[in-house]
Amino acid sequence: MMNRINVNLPEQSYEIAIASGNLDNLGEQMSSLQLRKKILLVSNPTIFKHYGERAIASLKAANFEVVSCTLPPGERYKNLNSIQKIYDVALENRLERSSTMVALGGGVVGDMTGFAAATWLRGINVVQVPTTLLAMVDSAIGGKTGVNHPQGKNLIGAFHQPRLVLIDPEVLKTLPMREFRAGMAEVIKYGVIWDAELFAQMEASKNLNQHRYVKPELIDSILTRSCQAKADVVSKDEKEAGLRAILNYGHTIGHAVESLTGYRLVNHGEAVGIGMVAAGQIAAELGMWQKEDTQRQDALIAKAGLPTKLPAGVDIEGIIEALQTDKKVKDGKVRFVLPTQIGVVTVTDEVPSDIITAVLRGMQG
Amino acid sequence: MMNRINVNLPEQSYEIAIASGNLDNLGEQMSSLQLRKKILLVSNPTIFKHYGERAIASLKAANFEVVSCTLPPGERYKNLNSIQKIYDVALENRLERSSTMVALGGGVVGDMTGFAAATWLRGINVVQVPTTLLAMVDSAIGGKTGVNHPQGKNLIGAFHQPRLVLIDPEVLKTLPMREFRAGMAEVIKYGVIWDAELFAQMEASKNLNQHRYVKPELIDSILTRSCQAKADVVSKDEKEAGLRAILNYGHTIGHAVESLTGYRLVNHGEAVGIGMVAAGQIAAELGMWQKEDTQRQDALIAKAGLPTKLPAGVDIEGIIEALQTDKKVKDGKVRFVLPTQIGVVTVTDEVPSDIITAVLRGMQG
Repeated sequence: MMNRINVNLPEQSYEIAIASGNLDNLGEQMSSLQLRKKILLVSNPTIFKHYGERAIASLKAANFEVVSCTLPPGERYKNLNSIQKIYDVALENRLERSSTMVALGGGVVGDMTGFAAATWLRGINVVQVPTTLLAMVDSAIGGKTGVNHPQGKNLIGAFHQPRLVLIDPEVLKTLPMREFRAGMAEVIKYGVIWDAELFAQMEASKNLNQHRYVKPELIDSILTRSCQAKADVVSKDEKEAGLRAILNYGHTIGHAVESLTGYRLVNHGEAVGIGMVAAGQIAAELGMWQKEDTQRQDALIAKAGLPTKLPAGVDIEGIIEALQTDKKVKDGKVRFVLPTQIGVVTVTDEVPSDIITAVLRGMQG
Repeated sequence: MMNRINVNLPEQSYEIAIASGNLDNLGEQMSSLQLRKKILLVSNPTIFKHYGERAIASLKAANFEVVSCTLPPGERYKNLNSIQKIYDVALENRLERSSTMVALGGGVVGDMTGFAAATWLRGINVVQVPTTLLAMVDSAIGGKTGVNHPQGKNLIGAFHQPRLVLIDPEVLKTLPMREFRAGMAEVIKYGVIWDAELFAQMEASKNLNQHRYVKPELIDSILTRSCQAKADVVSKDEKEAGLRAILNYGHTIGHAVESLTGYRLVNHGEAVGIGMVAAGQIAAELGMWQKEDTQRQDALIAKAGLPTKLPAGVDIEGIIEALQTDKKVKDGKVRFVLPTQIGVVTVTDEVPSDIITAVLRGMQG
């Protein structure tokens, strides 16, 4: 069965197509978009070994001409040097304005392929084939692309919407446990900011911390409802003029924690988990959210096998300082997304820094 | 007297404001756009020495907070390394999404500042203050931004419209003669593709090859009519889906010539002049354009002090090969913009390569 979710945008809408075994339909689905024949598939060596051949076979069966390149895995290679490598392959193979880059991989591959596609010949097509839970429910949808600056995450980038997001839930079977958990952080985020029913479904599940222990129906629901939430928000606010900011729930402090630990000690999802715990407590301190709901949220984060404390040794002053370089800062004020009930959040830049400090102190490991 | 030309676009329109002494109005005009206070002014050392202080004084008088950086001049520094320098200054000074970069300079400064603004925090404001004739009538308008790949010009880039284009014709007084002539190539282009009246005005002028010999009224007309032509075309086709391609008149072979001579021997305008001569002759060979009109065009190009022959030693096979890496290639076919009468052009990808070769042979110096 194929689930199709539409991302409605003024300039060009696109579908998120979710189905088991979907990887073998890649060529056919790209054909139906009337994309021209030249394809550059970008991946990382591990993912490419697992799924590269199948993706390429599907593309070739649909008469596409495919070249591929792999980039070293990991957030620390998400930089302009890796983008240069994509450019070089694009030039060597004479990609044209009507050609398409296909991102086969997790968030790092997706963000970089999207940025290369956004900036090669001032913008060519990109198709996202996310292979991690995090990329499926979050980074592959919505057109945010980019790389890191040595001193800050995602500071360099562009908005560039994909022509198609193709999801095959079966590839989650080869996803390392820690990365599955990281993706669950974003799924829990959708429960808190948008979809109380999804939150309730996860609360009702005995396990959340390993793919093989989560019932297939819940996996389906997690993918479909999360993608729908992201599509709803992005359709209403493509370029983060307002509503879209709510997707940054947990990300304000999360980014600071990632950055201070050099993108190594905690991964993005773990950082977001920590950020949601912090944001929930800030909301409770400000009297905006019931203490009981923060506990329900934190229990769900813990059930997904995610940390709810700061990594040992992280400097709280350092976090406060790092918040100032966040993209969301406006006139020096840090914006926070804070829950008011499960499924509903609000955005504020009126959080006193002593409250932030107090909450972070309470979260020291 | 202030001439204002509107560039109408679906997402955000903007003005081209042309007036003598306009540089001193920069701050005031940016204020009226309600831009927030942080400004990063980007320039090159020569231009900054001439006009940096005045621009900054005007901005400060309007309560902007200004930092600046200068980049080495010349097409060969139009690369990602220079963009990295802008990013570093942006980070150091904590530019925010609501901040603005101001490009004070020619096409290289404008293209790079525009690209840095397009990609910093996924897009911040940019204001273009062009100081060369070429940048005034062409590159500062329309949102094309980018840098060169070592193997091809402008292969890396993005569409990013400015919030304002501010032109002060007085700065042309310090423009080197060769650069004035280069700008005239684009002005002649507008005459051929769009504005027969502008063409006639230039034909009627005794001199076109030095700023000080061209009457101020003609300079005014050149700036206003050229900017209007560019604004008309860009308003109708922001992202080069169709009509905008006509702006590439003379650029197909022009880019190849620039690339083959390492961006040193001929400058962009000279290359466009050569490209227009070639395109005109191709059109005549194909029976699309009257021989007499090609001669009128070539006479105007020569009167502007621009070359009408290929630089000595340029390999014609090399030009044919280089055409294949042009951004405008689609399914391996090279698109040409060809005139059918003065003021009117058409686009075709049906030019036999033996005609291209024959025309280029006839243009060997």
